[in-house]
Amino acid sequence: MNIEKRLLKGDRRACARLITMLENDDERAIEIIKRLYKHSGNAYIIGITGPPGSGKSTLTNRLARKLRNRDKKVGILAIDPTSPFTGGAILGDRIRMSDLALDKGIFIRSMGTRGSLGGMSKATWSAAKVLDIYGMDYIFIETVGVGQSEVDIVKVADTVLMIMVPNLGDDIQAIKAGIMEIGDIFAINKSDLDGADKTKMEIEMNLDLNDKKDYRPPVIKVSATQDENMDKLVEKLIEHRNYMERTEKLIERRKDNTKFKIIKLIEEELMNLIMDRALEQNLLESLSNEVVLNDLDPYTAKDKIMRLIK
Amino acid sequence: MNIEKRLLKGDRRACARLITMLENDDERAIEIIKRLYKHSGNAYIIGITGPPGSGKSTLTNRLARKLRNRDKKVGILAIDPTSPFTGGAILGDRIRMSDLALDKGIFIRSMGTRGSLGGMSKATWSAAKVLDIYGMDYIFIETVGVGQSEVDIVKVADTVLMIMVPNLGDDIQAIKAGIMEIGDIFAINKSDLDGADKTKMEIEMNLDLNDKKDYRPPVIKVSATQDENMDKLVEKLIEHRNYMERTEKLIERRKDNTKFKIIKLIEEELMNLIMDRALEQNLLESLSNEVVLNDLDPYTAKDKIMRLIK
Repeated sequence: MNIEKRLLKGDRRACARLITMLENDDERAIEIIKRLYKHSGNAYIIGITGPPGSGKSTLTNRLARKLRNRDKKVGILAIDPTSPFTGGAILGDRIRMSDLALDKGIFIRSMGTRGSLGGMSKATWSAAKVLDIYGMDYIFIETVGVGQSEVDIVKVADTVLMIMVPNLGDDIQAIKAGIMEIGDIFAINKSDLDGADKTKMEIEMNLDLNDKKDYRPPVIKVSATQDENMDKLVEKLIEHRNYMERTEKLIERRKDNTKFKIIKLIEEELMNLIMDRALEQNLLESLSNEVVLNDLDPYTAKDKIMRLIK
Repeated sequence: MNIEKRLLKGDRRACARLITMLENDDERAIEIIKRLYKHSGNAYIIGITGPPGSGKSTLTNRLARKLRNRDKKVGILAIDPTSPFTGGAILGDRIRMSDLALDKGIFIRSMGTRGSLGGMSKATWSAAKVLDIYGMDYIFIETVGVGQSEVDIVKVADTVLMIMVPNLGDDIQAIKAGIMEIGDIFAINKSDLDGADKTKMEIEMNLDLNDKKDYRPPVIKVSATQDENMDKLVEKLIEHRNYMERTEKLIERRKDNTKFKIIKLIEEELMNLIMDRALEQNLLESLSNEVVLNDLDPYTAKDKIMRLIK
């Protein structure tokens, strides 16, 4: 049986194989997704992001376990910071919670950020589609959230869960401001630490400033390791999902995200086209030489290469 | 006198104005840089990155002060995490060290990450060129280093200074691995904290693994607030600069960075081109609708738009 049919029948290895092919930019995997696309759309995608050290993996695993207890099938895509030079993911699947790995209703996968614009892998979106077709009810996409990654997570997720921790210093506080507009739900993890109430208050105050919407993101203190308030967090996620579906904001968000995806695909193809021609003529190389010697500026260099396709 | 002449004469306000124009995507600023480009190339660019909370600003300011004492003119571009929705920089110049702000030989500027690919502002590269033309000897570009930002910093800098701190948890440790290949110099800041020696050892061990180069990045413990070992750090920066110049690796790196810049400029222009056409025809909108309803896959949608420009 081919990989396509095996995926539709819920074959775990076919699912894993297809995601690997996507990571390797294998054109055949894209063709398969194109053919199976009509079988997607059932899974609900939850983006989970937060600063380094906020306990994202533990929290994600705990949520997955709770949804499993409600008989939901859950996929987890953990986006790992990638070495830009070797291209390899750093955190392995190995170190993910092992009791989940044995459960057939759970599919966990670490992905690097290779080929990414921002912290999100180019293959993440497609991998989520594979998990969707594979039959998952929920898909968690977990990223280290600093700067660009947050923008990216909002572009693939139906609901964005923002994880904060008490007392993470000034840089983190700064990052929070950017986070305010993205989070649909705020969870303050490690809330047994001092300062959890202060952090909660700060987030609430920030939300007050932005309060133009008919939906107010809830802010809840949790402890993933001690399983405190985690059931409430699950409820909040489901509430947000219901809100998104009821108000048709889900369709709206998915449409925006689809546009973003199409734009990225176009960007990629155009770039490949033009770079092929420029490389063919050794143009990029020779123009860069001129720029480094200050005989040319990079804007004019760009114009010269652009003339190749005009 | 026009802004162009004023910049060449070292007019501080002209410099600030030009950077603002660049941040606002003002085409006239680009034209000015094109005309003045031949006056650039003297400044040496040092990228400074590290995890949130590692004390980057304090350390950067301290280094700037030390170089000022050696009669060097120093520009600082501090890249702030930006809200992707409002586009505003979060940390203001206000909170930067105020004694530096009064020194005419120092130019400090906070920049948002608006329009960025990754954590680096699109305007950062051009702003560095402005500071270069303005007559700065050294330019520090300081970013929060997580994920993509590191890739970006290496694409604009001549030397990359990586700041670490003792005991920052697992995520940070993971990020370190990606950092190893980028850092030219490693400074462990806040080295009065427990665990500084352990962190130093870990970094050294990681460097052992990667040790294929003729240059071995030094790892030094410092304390920026207590001015400990900071003179040594300055020496290490100058040593690396000498190494880069002596071995002609500087030209090589600048050539790579120039290529990256030209590619980014092409990417941007292509995007603008295609989006103008696709939006004009309402095509992106209608295709996205079909994709969300699962009547079409995004790859085929991309092909349909591509046909427009072929």
